[in-house]
Order: sequence, then C-alpha cells, then structure tokens
Amino acid sequence: MCQLLGMSCNVPTDIVFSFEGFRQRGGLTDEHADGWGIAFFEEHGCRMFLDYQASATSPVADLVRNYPIKSRNVIAHIRKATQGVTSLANTHPFQRELWGRYWIFAHNGNLNGLPPLTGSRFLPVGNTDSEHAFCWLMNMLAVECPEAPGAAELHSVLGEFARYLSQFGTFNFLLSDGHALFAHCSTELHYIVRKAPFSTAHLSDTDVQVDFATVTLPSDQVAVIATQPLTDNEAWQKMPAGELLMFIDGHPRRLPG
Amino acid sequence: MCQLLGMSCNVPTDIVFSFEGFRQRGGLTDEHADGWGIAFFEEHGCRMFLDYQASATSPVADLVRNYPIKSRNVIAHIRKATQGVTSLANTHPFQRELWGRYWIFAHNGNLNGLPPLTGSRFLPVGNTDSEHAFCWLMNMLAVECPEAPGAAELHSVLGEFARYLSQFGTFNFLLSDGHALFAHCSTELHYIVRKAPFSTAHLSDTDVQVDFATVTLPSDQVAVIATQPLTDNEAWQKMPAGELLMFIDGHPRRLPG
Repeated sequence: MCQLLGMSCNVPTDIVFSFEGFRQRGGLTDEHADGWGIAFFEEHGCRMFLDYQASATSPVADLVRNYPIKSRNVIAHIRKATQGVTSLANTHPFQRELWGRYWIFAHNGNLNGLPPLTGSRFLPVGNTDSEHAFCWLMNMLAVECPEAPGAAELHSVLGEFARYLSQFGTFNFLLSDGHALFAHCSTELHYIVRKAPFSTAHLSDTDVQVDFATVTLPSDQVAVIATQPLTDNEAWQKMPAGELLMFIDGHPRRLPG
Repeated sequence: MCQLLGMSCNVPTDIVFSFEGFRQRGGLTDEHADGWGIAFFEEHGCRMFLDYQASATSPVADLVRNYPIKSRNVIAHIRKATQGVTSLANTHPFQRELWGRYWIFAHNGNLNGLPPLTGSRFLPVGNTDSEHAFCWLMNMLAVECPEAPGAAELHSVLGEFARYLSQFGTFNFLLSDGHALFAHCSTELHYIVRKAPFSTAHLSDTDVQVDFATVTLPSDQVAVIATQPLTDNEAWQKMPAGELLMFIDGHPRRLPG
C-alpha cells in the first residue's frame, strides 16, 4: 500500500514541515520506498517532482525540503508497490488536463477488476490500477460534464463515481484541479484544519516542531490530509469510510445528505 | 523569444554537459530569464522540472545539474516572454497524454492569429500562443489518427501540421512522445550527432569541456538539438527553414520528397 499527503490553504503556504515528516515514511520510519511524488499547484500552473528512489533519501526530496514552494493545493504520495513495477510511469501523482485545468491524482489502496475505460480520451501510460482508475474518473467526468461544472456539482458527481469505484477494492485518493482538493476515504485518511489561534505542532516521524503562530497571519487557514496523522500533539480527524470531502481554501465540505 | 534544447540517444544518457551551457543563457550569457523547464522521458514515464526563476540561478536547475538523470529523450526550454505573463502555467515544456503516451512540447517563436481549437479535447491552461499551438497539434493528431500511427506516418502528418501552423509566425519547436523527438525549424535550430570516434567538446557559454570518449561506449549515439550551437569546437548543422526532422535513437530522419 501507499501513503497520501494533501494540503489545501487559503493563502499560498509551503508544505516543508509536513513533508519532512511524511518523507521519513518512504524508507526510514516505514516501508513505502518504491518511489514518491509531489505536485504543487501555483495559480493555474502545476509542477510535479517525481522520483523512484525512496523519499527518505531522494535528492529530489532534498530539493523540495530546501526550496519552499508556496502553494494552495498540494498532493504527495509515497509508494509501496502492489500492482505494477517500480518505474517512473507508475509513480504517483498522475496528471491530466480537462476543461483547460490540470488534474492531479494519487491513490492509496488496491483495486481489482476495474471496469474498462469508456472511450480513448484518457489512457494510462503505466500499468497500475491507480492510473486506470484516474483515467476512468477523467473519462466519466468529461462525458458527464462537457463543460466545467461548479464546485458543488463536481463534488456530487465525483461522489457518485468514487462510490462506484469503491466496490472494486480500497480506494483512498486525493484529487485536485488547483481550486478544490477532493479527499476520498475508503479505509484510512485523516485530516486537520489549522487556523487561529495557532499553536505548536510536533512531527511523529522525526523530532521536529514548529510554532505556527510565528509563521502565519490570523486569517490563514490550512488543511492537511494524510493517511496517518503526521503530528503527535494535535487532534487529527479520522474520515469515515465512504466519505468524499471537498477542501477549498482550507475549508472541508461534506456532501449534503 | 526563447531557446530550445533537445536530446535523442540510443542509450539513456545524462544531459548535464549541454544543460550546463544552455542554462547560462537564462539570465547570465543571454536574456532568456522568464522561467525555464526540462522534461526527461524514462521509458514510458516522464518527469518535468519547471521554474519561473531564471535558469542560471534556479535551485531546481542546480538539482538537474547535480542529479544526472539518464534519459533517451529530453526537451528543455528557457523563456523570454513574448506573449503571456511569467507564470508557471506559461512555462514550457507543456505536457499532455495521447494514445497512452505522454507528449512534451516546447516552442521558440511568436505566433499570431492561430486557428481556433477544434473540439475541447486538449485545451490550454495558460495563455501563450505556444500552448495553444500545442493543443491544436494534439487535437488534430487525435482527429487524424484515432489510434497511434507508426513513426513514419506520424512524421508525415506532423510535417503537414507544422507547415500549416508556420504561416502564423515563427514556429521552431521540439516535440516528443518518448520514442521519437521531432524538431521543426522555422528560423533557427541547429543539431549535432555525436558518435564514435568521440572527441572533446567545449561549451560556448562557460569554460567547461568534456572528453566524450571517456564516458561513452563505441555503440553510443547522441543527437543534441539547440536553437544556437552549445559548443565552440564542433560542427553543428543548421536546419533549413521548414524542415521537420524526426530523431529516433540519436538518428535524424528527413521527410521523404
């Protein structure tokens, strides 16, 4: 299996603190050493850093730590291969373009017997169940919504698709178009919303702490989503199975009903 | 305008030497300081490094120099903005997926009055003429060839499309699907094919030289394509206006006829 990390904020924020804990799980404090990747949205643009080396020791991960990129939507993934070889083509996150926006997707879990792809608009490049599921989602979105829908409609449509794909196995995922960040929990996904009054957080995986009060403004709001909590002195919320949260500007929204 | 750098090889090769000269033109020996990017194909996978800082001083460019990624197809670009603001969304190269392959595109030139995009399958995320032209090419390829054609047919079809788009301005570009690398010259593009017997090359933009005989096997073949020659002691070939070369495994092929 793998681990996911996401961040949604109302102001561009660097993810250096969370990433420093997260990357340790890629080969040091945990076994997810079959590559890793991170995608940063910056306005409409997006840049990804991928490596098939373990994140704990990857030179690209060192760059991400030393060059604090400020972003409002970030998705990262460390991989423990279940399907597909260890290669760059199988390294999450995956990227496609739909409606003139980049879409970024990362998955934790294992899916079997996925439905075939309808149409050839989005096809996998590698051979993972994860990229297949992403292409299925993108194809279905493109068919269902010829033009970009509003955020609430997008949330609702993705909720249906996520429920459908969940019957094929474990489907924890993060998905973002740079505006909203969707987090779907099938078995395990946690999140925390940090806002004023900010306090000090301490990483679980390495002895690092930060006093957020010294690096934020009172109006800042930052949501961090992770497979397992990244800090040991904050109250992370465990998402229930089957929930699809939509984070915009650090605010989580549930599907109505 | 901008500058382009491409590499096509028959074995995975690092581009550290050429990139070291090329990046100087992004703010040091030349004025192309409005961002830069480089894409490496590794088998079917692809990773890009983008930055809107000048390549001469970018920390991401330092990583590319210090972490020699071996690839058979590379495309890099340094930008001097003509259309579109300096932003990540407007930073070349651009990436899309077609036929289950990643496509990478970078452009040097200025296009005006481009035809509208047919269909909505590939849409620009930023607002440059370059990304518009790339999406036009991808849309036309998808319409013309519902399934992936062979290399010769792809070359021929792209030749027609490139000729058509060239009437809208200057259209020097590099395009690759990880197998072939296409180089189109509208006004300026040079290339060199290095093969045995290898000799010593010296960069034009900084005092660095390498003896390729010490780092290659006799069977290696590497083609480097650049807007302006990168070395001052080798015989670079200037491409004629209107030519579309297809490089596979370091071998250039002309369109027949």
